[in-house]
Amino acid sequence: MASHLENLLLPHGRTALCKSVLPALLDCIADIAESLHQSQHVSLAGGTNAFGDGQLNVDISAENLLRAALAECPSVETASSEEDPVERPARDSQAEGGVSATSEKYTVAFDPLDGSSIIAPNWTVGTIIGIWDGGSAIHQRPSEKQIAAILGVYGPRTTAIVALRVPGGEPCCLEIGIGKSGAHEFLRSDMRFADPPFKTRYFAPANLRAAAESEAYMRLITHYVEKKYTLRYSGGLVPDLVHALVKGHGVYISPVTSVSEAKLRRLYELFPVALVVECAGGKAINPVDGEDILTRPLENCDETAGLICGTAEEVGIAKKALLGSHP
Amino acid sequence: MASHLENLLLPHGRTALCKSVLPALLDCIADIAESLHQSQHVSLAGGTNAFGDGQLNVDISAENLLRAALAECPSVETASSEEDPVERPARDSQAEGGVSATSEKYTVAFDPLDGSSIIAPNWTVGTIIGIWDGGSAIHQRPSEKQIAAILGVYGPRTTAIVALRVPGGEPCCLEIGIGKSGAHEFLRSDMRFADPPFKTRYFAPANLRAAAESEAYMRLITHYVEKKYTLRYSGGLVPDLVHALVKGHGVYISPVTSVSEAKLRRLYELFPVALVVECAGGKAINPVDGEDILTRPLENCDETAGLICGTAEEVGIAKKALLGSHP
Repeated sequence: MASHLENLLLPHGRTALCKSVLPALLDCIADIAESLHQSQHVSLAGGTNAFGDGQLNVDISAENLLRAALAECPSVETASSEEDPVERPARDSQAEGGVSATSEKYTVAFDPLDGSSIIAPNWTVGTIIGIWDGGSAIHQRPSEKQIAAILGVYGPRTTAIVALRVPGGEPCCLEIGIGKSGAHEFLRSDMRFADPPFKTRYFAPANLRAAAESEAYMRLITHYVEKKYTLRYSGGLVPDLVHALVKGHGVYISPVTSVSEAKLRRLYELFPVALVVECAGGKAINPVDGEDILTRPLENCDETAGLICGTAEEVGIAKKALLGSHP
Repeated sequence: MASHLENLLLPHGRTALCKSVLPALLDCIADIAESLHQSQHVSLAGGTNAFGDGQLNVDISAENLLRAALAECPSVETASSEEDPVERPARDSQAEGGVSATSEKYTVAFDPLDGSSIIAPNWTVGTIIGIWDGGSAIHQRPSEKQIAAILGVYGPRTTAIVALRVPGGEPCCLEIGIGKSGAHEFLRSDMRFADPPFKTRYFAPANLRAAAESEAYMRLITHYVEKKYTLRYSGGLVPDLVHALVKGHGVYISPVTSVSEAKLRRLYELFPVALVVECAGGKAINPVDGEDILTRPLENCDETAGLICGTAEEVGIAKKALLGSHP
């Protein structure tokens, strides 16, 4: 597997990303999977994070594993997470390895364990990671500066989706089988949404309750039912997106309505997911104004928004349904 | 864990069930989990089963593991599975261990790996097992003769739901954490659907496409949206049911309409699931006539039907919506 990543990254001056950051994060995903596998007793750890979510013991364990992994990567200067949404140095400046030996300098933003509500019933959950060029993600153009994203997928197997869009290189989306102790293998080196015609169309309607107040959302749902789309909605952003990627088709909608506010964290959820979707040939837009998720820079780490993403054609249909004649 | 099972089963003359059949099946669930964890390359094995489903390599592996486990249990006389839906002796009559040393005699019917369509995207899948008194499940009253059911749940962790309803004993539903090499532990010894009022109501609408032709099904879906139920629908019967059990509330609907035929196998899916639901205080009925799933005996191993199951109150609401003034 290493040589394939080397071919993709070394010609573009990404030695540390290739040989340090990505391997450390993939190994960390293996460690989080093992930690989840051992955690038969899922419990609230007692705290709430900055977004008001109750923290589970497994959230905290995943957070700690990722922080420790990043501290070992000299090129990672800054880190922040959904559990502690403030950009901070990735390690104690006194610690060994604190000085980067390369010209590469990265900021990593992550949601250590996405899908808290479905951990207790033992459904597939995930980790979401975005990797940015430079020492901060704030006020940077996401479409240029976020150069890689990783989704860790914890189900019957452990897999990861890696999206790469480094300057000078072709965007690509990879599926990787995660083994123990660094024994990872490429499953697919070019994950792409399929072109029409589609054998089966899938839809994942988040916050379906909002359709009670939004005629436009209700009409869109009715459209999917009448056109015989197949429903798959786990309520976990990672498994819902990975379903669409693996099937080659799908649309995920997290609407924003008068009574239902934007739920997804831009930095920790939307940006990495949007990079994966774009690298696989799909679209990811804001349901409020139709703008690409990766266009508008971040002002603060705790911003939220809605999402329509997936197969480009389907995103267009959903956008038209929700925005009508707006942009 | 063993002593808790002993308290539940030994007073009712179920030594072999307690000390041989259940431990063998729980260990087998651990083995299937390990096999799935190692199977990064999910592929069609080339065949189709009697129900016309394409067989995956992981289906066949799970089938073989279960057959081998049952062959080691002297009290299991007969076995059949969704992959080979014919009742046959559980072992070669010449083989060692072929003579039961106890008066207990069981028939085991199983779906080795339910949820084929969601294995590739790495979503949680499951094993479904029903255990019957006597040498056959055919022409027997399911409500009396199916005395135990097990759901194996393969997600970030491995868990099992065990329902027991042996004559003379109290019905009970247990959640078990599956570890390696027989290291299992009770997570909950009395899994029950909650009583009203419900904080959050969940619904899982299978075959939602059918709502395009069924006004009654569409009205029921609209009811859930308007009443702000939370949607969770993975498309896997085991994870969908386990979600409801763990949350303490939920309703699962697999309708039968003019253009959408009955999809679920009575022997391999509906009967074990119905026993689990009833032992947890819920209801499981046929959406066509409202009859309890466990009432009507089986004529053939390959019979299918629809399903409404979950929280008793919710099953009543769905039944009324789909059947109207019928029975």
